[in-house]
Amino acid sequence: MPPECYPSAASEPAPEPEPKARRIDGKVISAAIKEEIKEEVQKLMAEHNLQPGLACMIVGERKDSQSYVKSKKKTAGELGFHSVDVALPADVTQEVVLAEVKKLNDDPAVHGILVQLPLPDHIDEEIILAAISLEKDADGFSPVNMGRLCMKGKLKPTAVPCTPKGCIEMLDRMGVEIEGKKAVVLGRSNIVGIPVAHLLLHRNATVTICHSRTKDLPSVVREADILVAAVGRAEMVRGDWIKPGAVVIDVGINSKDDPSKKAGYRLVGDCNMKEMFQVASMATPVPGGVGPMTIAMLMKNTVELAKASKGIA
Amino acid sequence: MPPECYPSAASEPAPEPEPKARRIDGKVISAAIKEEIKEEVQKLMAEHNLQPGLACMIVGERKDSQSYVKSKKKTAGELGFHSVDVALPADVTQEVVLAEVKKLNDDPAVHGILVQLPLPDHIDEEIILAAISLEKDADGFSPVNMGRLCMKGKLKPTAVPCTPKGCIEMLDRMGVEIEGKKAVVLGRSNIVGIPVAHLLLHRNATVTICHSRTKDLPSVVREADILVAAVGRAEMVRGDWIKPGAVVIDVGINSKDDPSKKAGYRLVGDCNMKEMFQVASMATPVPGGVGPMTIAMLMKNTVELAKASKGIA
Repeated sequence: MPPECYPSAASEPAPEPEPKARRIDGKVISAAIKEEIKEEVQKLMAEHNLQPGLACMIVGERKDSQSYVKSKKKTAGELGFHSVDVALPADVTQEVVLAEVKKLNDDPAVHGILVQLPLPDHIDEEIILAAISLEKDADGFSPVNMGRLCMKGKLKPTAVPCTPKGCIEMLDRMGVEIEGKKAVVLGRSNIVGIPVAHLLLHRNATVTICHSRTKDLPSVVREADILVAAVGRAEMVRGDWIKPGAVVIDVGINSKDDPSKKAGYRLVGDCNMKEMFQVASMATPVPGGVGPMTIAMLMKNTVELAKASKGIA
Repeated sequence: MPPECYPSAASEPAPEPEPKARRIDGKVISAAIKEEIKEEVQKLMAEHNLQPGLACMIVGERKDSQSYVKSKKKTAGELGFHSVDVALPADVTQEVVLAEVKKLNDDPAVHGILVQLPLPDHIDEEIILAAISLEKDADGFSPVNMGRLCMKGKLKPTAVPCTPKGCIEMLDRMGVEIEGKKAVVLGRSNIVGIPVAHLLLHRNATVTICHSRTKDLPSVVREADILVAAVGRAEMVRGDWIKPGAVVIDVGINSKDDPSKKAGYRLVGDCNMKEMFQVASMATPVPGGVGPMTIAMLMKNTVELAKASKGIA
C-alpha cells in the first residue's frame, strides 16, 4: 500500500475519546416502568373494577404546553387510563378555572388532576394548585403536599412531584446507593431543586443546595458523589466541575443554537455532555435522560392515587 | 516578699485560654426585641385599638411543657398582650382538642395560637397543627406554612417557626452577612433543621444539611462559614470540627451529668462551648443563646399575625 494511504500522525485529527460513564437511559427505564404500569392497570381493572383516571387541564394555546399535554394524554391512553381533557381559552377568568378544577375534584372517574403550567399571568397559579383536591394532586405541587414532603411525619405526601421522583427512580433502577452519599443539587426551583433535595435527604444523603449566588460553584459541585443539575443554563457544568466517578442526573433541557440542525438549534442539558461522560461513572444524556421519566412518574402517581382512593395497598 | 509567695511556673496550672469568639448574647438581643415589641403593642393599641392576643394550649401535665407555657404567658403579659390559656387533661379526646382549637380560631381577640408540643400519644399532632387557622398559626408549623416556607412563591408563610426565625434574627442583629456564605445545618428536624435550612437558602446561602447518617461529619461541618447545630447531642461538635472564624449558632439544649451542680446536671449545647469559643469568630452560648430568642420570636409572630388580621403593614 502506498505510504500516502497512511495519514501522518501529525495531520490526523485527535480521535473522539470513548465515553467512560455508563449511560442512564431514560427511554429504556421509562419504557420498563410504563410496561409495569400497563400490567398494573389491567390487574386493577380485572380485580377491582378500577380504571385510573387522569385529567389534564390546559389554559391558553402555548405550543410547548400543548405538546406536553398531548404526550401525557397519549401515554395515558396507551397505558389503559381513563382520560379527561379540559382546554380553556387564554382569557378565561380565574373563577372559571377554579370551577373546572372543582368539577374534576368531584368526578369519581378522575383520580389524578394535572394543571399544565405556566398559567396565563392573570391567573394565580398558587390558588389554582391549592384548589386541587389533595387526593387528586397528581403533580404533588399543592402547598400541603410540598409541606409534607419537606417534613418528616406520619402524613406522607399523596403524590411527589414527577421530575424529582423520576430522578430518584433512575438512581434506584441503576443500583446507585444514596444513603451516606454527598448529593449536590444545583438549582432551587419549586418543581425540581427543592423537592429533589428533600427526596435525597429522606434517603439519608448529605445534601447541599447551590444556586446562582453560590460562590466558587465548581468547587461546591466537585464535592458531589451524586449531582443533580437543575439550573436551566445550557452546558454550564464542565467536566472539571465533576468529581471523577460521580453519578450525574442532568435535568436541564435547554436549546442551543446549532446551524447544522434543520431547526437551527439542538437540545442540551445543564452539563457539557461530552465532558461529563468522560469524568462521571454514570450519567443521563440530554435528550433521552430525565425527560422521558417525568411522564412515566405522572402515570405512576395517578395509579397510586387511584389505588389510595379505594384503599388498595 | 518571701519567694514561697511566688508559685513556681512548673506547679502553676495552665491558665484558661481567653475565648476568642464574640459572644452572641441571646438574652441581650431578645430583651431588645421584646422592648421593641412592647412599644409596638402600645402603638397598635393607641392607633388601631388592636391588642395582640396569644392563646397557649397545653394538654397533659409534662413539667417541661408547663414551664415553657408559663414563661410564654409571662412574656405575653409583660409585653401587653391579651392572653388566653387552655389547659386540657392528658386523657382528653382528640375531638375535644380539635373543638378547643376551633373555638380559638373563631375568637376575634386571639391572633396567635400556640399548641405546646409534644401532645399525648393518642392525639395526632399533625391533625391538630393542621386544624389551626393559617391566619393564627403562631408557631408556623402547619403543613401549608411549611410548604410555603420551602417554596419560592407569591404566598409567603403567615408565620415562620420561632427557633429558626430566632437564629436568623441573631445573625442579622450581629451584622453577619448570609448571602453567598456556606451554611451547614446539622440536624434535619421539622422544628429547627429543615426550616432554618430554607431560611438560609432564601437569604442566598449555599446550604448543606447533614445528620446522623452523614459520613465524615467533622469534615462536612468544617466547610461551614455559618454553622447551625441542631442535633440534640451534648457537646458533639468539637473545636476542630469548626472552621476558624466561622459563626456558630448552637441550638442544642442538652442536660449533662455534673455532680458539682446542685441539680446534678448542667445544660450544654450541641457544641463543646469552650473549644467553640476558641475557634469561631462569633458564637452563641448555651444557656443564654438561642433559648431566649424563641419566645421573643413567638411574640413577634403574634404581633405580625395581629397586624395582618387588620391589614396593617
